[in-house]
Amino acid sequence: MGQSYHTTRRVEFRDTDAAGIAHFSVFFVYMEQAEHELLRHLGLSVMFHDDHGKISFPRVGARCDYQRAVKFEDLMDIEVSIVRLGTKSVTFEFNFSHDGQAVASGQTTTVCCRLSDTGPPQSMPIPDWIAEKLSAVVV
Amino acid sequence: MGQSYHTTRRVEFRDTDAAGIAHFSVFFVYMEQAEHELLRHLGLSVMFHDDHGKISFPRVGARCDYQRAVKFEDLMDIEVSIVRLGTKSVTFEFNFSHDGQAVASGQTTTVCCRLSDTGPPQSMPIPDWIAEKLSAVVV
Amino acid sequence: MGQSYHTTRRVEFRDTDAAGIAHFSVFFVYMEQAEHELLRHLGLSVMFHDDHGKISFPRVGARCDYQRAVKFEDLMDIEVSIVRLGTKSVTFEFNFSHDGQAVASGQTTTVCCRLSDTGPPQSMPIPDWIAEKLSAVVV
Amino acid sequence: MGQSYHTTRRVEFRDTDAAGIAHFSVFFVYMEQAEHELLRHLGLSVMFHDDHGKISFPRVGARCDYQRAVKFEDLMDIEVSIVRLGTKSVTFEFNFSHDGQAVASGQTTTVCCRLSDTGPPQSMPIPDWIAEKLSAVVV
Repeated sequence: MGQSYHTTRRVEFRDTDAAGIAHFSVFFVYMEQAEHELLRHLGLSVMFHDDHGKISFPRVGARCDYQRAVKFEDLMDIEVSIVRLGTKSVTFEFNFSHDGQAVASGQTTTVCCRLSDTGPPQSMPIPDWIAEKLSAVVV
Repeated sequence: MGQSYHTTRRVEFRDTDAAGIAHFSVFFVYMEQAEHELLRHLGLSVMFHDDHGKISFPRVGARCDYQRAVKFEDLMDIEVSIVRLGTKSVTFEFNFSHDGQAVASGQTTTVCCRLSDTGPPQSMPIPDWIAEKLSAVVV
Repeated sequence: MGQSYHTTRRVEFRDTDAAGIAHFSVFFVYMEQAEHELLRHLGLSVMFHDDHGKISFPRVGARCDYQRAVKFEDLMDIEVSIVRLGTKSVTFEFNFSHDGQAVASGQTTTVCCRLSDTGPPQSMPIPDWIAEKLSAVVV
Repeated sequence: MGQSYHTTRRVEFRDTDAAGIAHFSVFFVYMEQAEHELLRHLGLSVMFHDDHGKISFPRVGARCDYQRAVKFEDLMDIEVSIVRLGTKSVTFEFNFSHDGQAVASGQTTTVCCRLSDTGPPQSMPIPDWIAEKLSAVVV
């Protein structure tokens, strides 16, 4: 059983919209940035190479539910964990809060794929050494 | 029973990422733009005024599933409809395709709210005249 | 002597910020989109191939001066032209207006380069057939 | 005579494009974020209130020259200073570097304005207490 990873994110001016709040779409960018920060923290990356070529994790789904608006310069806490580590896919969960109050919660699902220059990505089992590192944040 | 609304969207260079494809987060921006275009088409807007003040529709949820990648300059078809028109909320559905093949499908849910300068938005029933116009695209 | 190209652009909600207006940075995205639309109109693209490999036009400079703010759903006219077509470089100019009033004017400068996988882009003279097509909008 | 402010910025995946590098337009977003971070550091903000209402600093110009491309996850140093502090306007300069090599340099010019709900912003002299704080980074 792993443990969540925590990071923070300040709402930048470009993240806001004419309603005066962070635009709903930027939470998906925040999620990806938090995921990448977590991968670096685990000694992983978004692209890997083995003897057969490139491996990456294209996204197949993303969702977010919004509980409360945040504004320019608000500093959010983001809790990141993996709620499902399958044979070929990973589902990350992100809980955003501000001043101790829930702001939004989202999930992204990625699938381990062999990349090629000549066709679409082909799904494949997550290599053991990657799965082992990811398991640190499976909750 | 209504009928879907159709529009198109070209993938712009800024919409792409270093994987060479449209970034997953831009589909949420495309969804909002298609929704706003539909609202204009129906004679509606994103902000209304009645005798008691401002009414708007903050988003409470958004999701997207991805079937196929698209690249710079690809021209997508977007089919927009309302799959649930509740008393206070609306769920839009968006189906993206390119060259006749499914690219992505997403949903956004918004809630009719009375806006005030002094507190958070308060949910309220969708006014009849707005619901009537929206019903044109309920499928 | 060529002639300006004209296109339009509506300010989308994601383009706005908490000041209620189009964010200054989106004008650079609008400029690129208008340039790409012009290139398609001229039968050109942003990437070319000849017998020696890939040719593209990386940007070396961009600037914009702002005269007037625009808001969500404002529909701007954009006038695009080339104000300098050098041996190796091109300077595009963009004039944005709304309801007949100047909103912003900007320039971008790109340099014709041979791309390689092993090093940085190398500048080269613009091929004649490309320069000839571009000359249609040199003013 | 003041002293430059230094900060850093990692190129996020959403900042890249299909050319595999940070998109030229994101440098303008980086500049604004660095400026806002500097303002917070100086005890200032992007919006002020005095007895007569709101004061802010709309942008009237922005420019950037590009020397070298940066890629996903590259960590840049950003040096921020004020190269001109006028009676009514401020010109910030930003020098981006990576691994000790120049990446880009840009400037933004803002004008001190009284904001009103009923008309466009009106330029006004920068209040002394703001100018004094800004002078810490005038070089």
